[in-house]
Amino acid sequence: MTAVDNGHTHLRGPVLVIGTGLLGASIGLGLRRWGIDTVLSDPSPSAEAVARDIGAGRLLRDAEPGFAPELVVSAAPPDVTADVVAGALTDYPAAVVVDIASVKASVAADLATSGADLSRYVGTHPMAGREKTGPVAARAELFTSMPWVLCAPEAATGTAVKTAQALALDLGAVVSRMSVEEHDQTVAMISHLPQVVSSLVASRLQSTAPQALSLSGQGLRDVTRIAASDPSMWVQILGANASRVVDILYGVREDLNRLINTLEHPRADGARLDLAQLMSEGNAGQARIPGKHGAPPKAFAELTVLVDDIPGQIAKLLTEIGTIGVNLEDLRLDHSPGQPVGLAEISVVPNRRTELIEALTERGWKVVS
Amino acid sequence: MTAVDNGHTHLRGPVLVIGTGLLGASIGLGLRRWGIDTVLSDPSPSAEAVARDIGAGRLLRDAEPGFAPELVVSAAPPDVTADVVAGALTDYPAAVVVDIASVKASVAADLATSGADLSRYVGTHPMAGREKTGPVAARAELFTSMPWVLCAPEAATGTAVKTAQALALDLGAVVSRMSVEEHDQTVAMISHLPQVVSSLVASRLQSTAPQALSLSGQGLRDVTRIAASDPSMWVQILGANASRVVDILYGVREDLNRLINTLEHPRADGARLDLAQLMSEGNAGQARIPGKHGAPPKAFAELTVLVDDIPGQIAKLLTEIGTIGVNLEDLRLDHSPGQPVGLAEISVVPNRRTELIEALTERGWKVVS
Repeated sequence: MTAVDNGHTHLRGPVLVIGTGLLGASIGLGLRRWGIDTVLSDPSPSAEAVARDIGAGRLLRDAEPGFAPELVVSAAPPDVTADVVAGALTDYPAAVVVDIASVKASVAADLATSGADLSRYVGTHPMAGREKTGPVAARAELFTSMPWVLCAPEAATGTAVKTAQALALDLGAVVSRMSVEEHDQTVAMISHLPQVVSSLVASRLQSTAPQALSLSGQGLRDVTRIAASDPSMWVQILGANASRVVDILYGVREDLNRLINTLEHPRADGARLDLAQLMSEGNAGQARIPGKHGAPPKAFAELTVLVDDIPGQIAKLLTEIGTIGVNLEDLRLDHSPGQPVGLAEISVVPNRRTELIEALTERGWKVVS
Repeated sequence: MTAVDNGHTHLRGPVLVIGTGLLGASIGLGLRRWGIDTVLSDPSPSAEAVARDIGAGRLLRDAEPGFAPELVVSAAPPDVTADVVAGALTDYPAAVVVDIASVKASVAADLATSGADLSRYVGTHPMAGREKTGPVAARAELFTSMPWVLCAPEAATGTAVKTAQALALDLGAVVSRMSVEEHDQTVAMISHLPQVVSSLVASRLQSTAPQALSLSGQGLRDVTRIAASDPSMWVQILGANASRVVDILYGVREDLNRLINTLEHPRADGARLDLAQLMSEGNAGQARIPGKHGAPPKAFAELTVLVDDIPGQIAKLLTEIGTIGVNLEDLRLDHSPGQPVGLAEISVVPNRRTELIEALTERGWKVVS
């Protein structure tokens, strides 16, 4: 694996990473791939020791006197980000400082009132993560091909912005720029809304009978997958972006109330139309989410192949698709608890679909749609 | 592919399928695999012609005088199911009649007042479907390994129940039995709740800026996937199961109001605790959904491998896993719009994980966690 390199200037280091959770340790691992001197610090001695032991960098406590990083990355929790950034700007007067908190306006507001020198600061948000937490879950490729948003304050120098950008590019991410307000509104919609709704649905399952849950299909699984996320992190994120999330939730509540009202009187005039409208609006919104490669979801054609759930069967299928020379754009396995047979839903570019179906059928595969 | 055959007695036919949409046509295709004489009828001449042309059976309009089916399957929309069932019980006095509507209590109630002979009737619900509709999307394997619930009325004879069961087994499904009330409460929770919530979230995206949507991650995609479902079918399902769905939605609304109240005053005493509780309840509910093979989700160990998005790369990975001899329990591709590199998250039984990581690493794969 070679990380994306589109001719940008690498960081020269050293880079100080404050906070060695999943993201901080992953940043360390990613920078070490380039041989960049990475220095780690965390209030938890065991967390920073684990991060060092997995190869994310050396420890700040062992650093030479007069240690002067090129870049300081605050990978601290959102709650303490502004303090950590302000402290770093003071402690390292020659360094550029970035944070990677997933909310940006509250951090910017706190920094504005702190009197810190914001010419050397850039707020950033790598849009990557996992349901798992801590340095043990870290991986150098966590940011590979993921969006990384930069929110530079007006005061930020060109050098500060370029340094923040080099961090993202060194880690293989895709940079985009927006204002803190635009960022926070965006994540309220595309990240915080689905998170809270997923949690609301999943919490209903706490008292559902096991027999009922045993009939769960892929729909329920998909809707509730992210409900497994870390509560402590989300408490901070939701708290910091509360006003924007709540604005969206007012709209959800209005629609929910309309739906409840309709379902309370399912035989009333207009009830059917109300339900149809809710569903159609969902269709319309869902269709606007871009697919892989930024293309609209409908840009790929699907086919479904029956596979036995035995070692190597899916591999064999994909090998043959590779041999046929068709690129697999996406793959989803559809299966049911306790069963030995499943369906592989395969997305390919539309003009190769017929050819692929013919070639697979010839090779004895059961293409079921 | 050989369909599941666990020694049950096959239907002998003929089987009359009334309604040749996705499910009805799929039933026809599935029964024809066993050579069972399948006869089709649909109010839409073009729908029944398509179903015949794809091999789902012959048309009722061409049937011999005195045609007497062993089994009639109402695959009509929920709205007209009770009428179709009552009509079939009258028209075919020697036949067992089943319906496959995804709501059961309203159908049973309508039939109870119709005066129909319920000794020959069994309500059923094959828990299978697609986001697509119509006979063109039909496939013989739609029901393979999926749950198929039987809700037999008290009056139903043993023959009626055995015939309904033979239908499900001939189509490769897994039979379970429950009362209509238990069924409708179950699907309200595991199917109708996630559907309406997915639609509510997706409908918010109708006015979201394209740039914001371009940052969408897997979380939003997963939560909104089923929002692409067919409105006209869901209008009927939600209308028929309104009281049970609305009971669950009251709980969702209560939690949503609590969340909104908390987010309106994010710095109030107890706000953090409220948010933590919502998230933790989501964790707890999500963890109760059984995984593949009925095992709890945590029963499998995950590993993540970096894959280039080129033809054959994922196939190559899975081939090597097959060669190593480890069974793939689940596979999820994680990717980002516009990018050539992705992550394959692989689930295996825990005691094979370390071995697999070592073997893959030896073969030059980048296992990132």
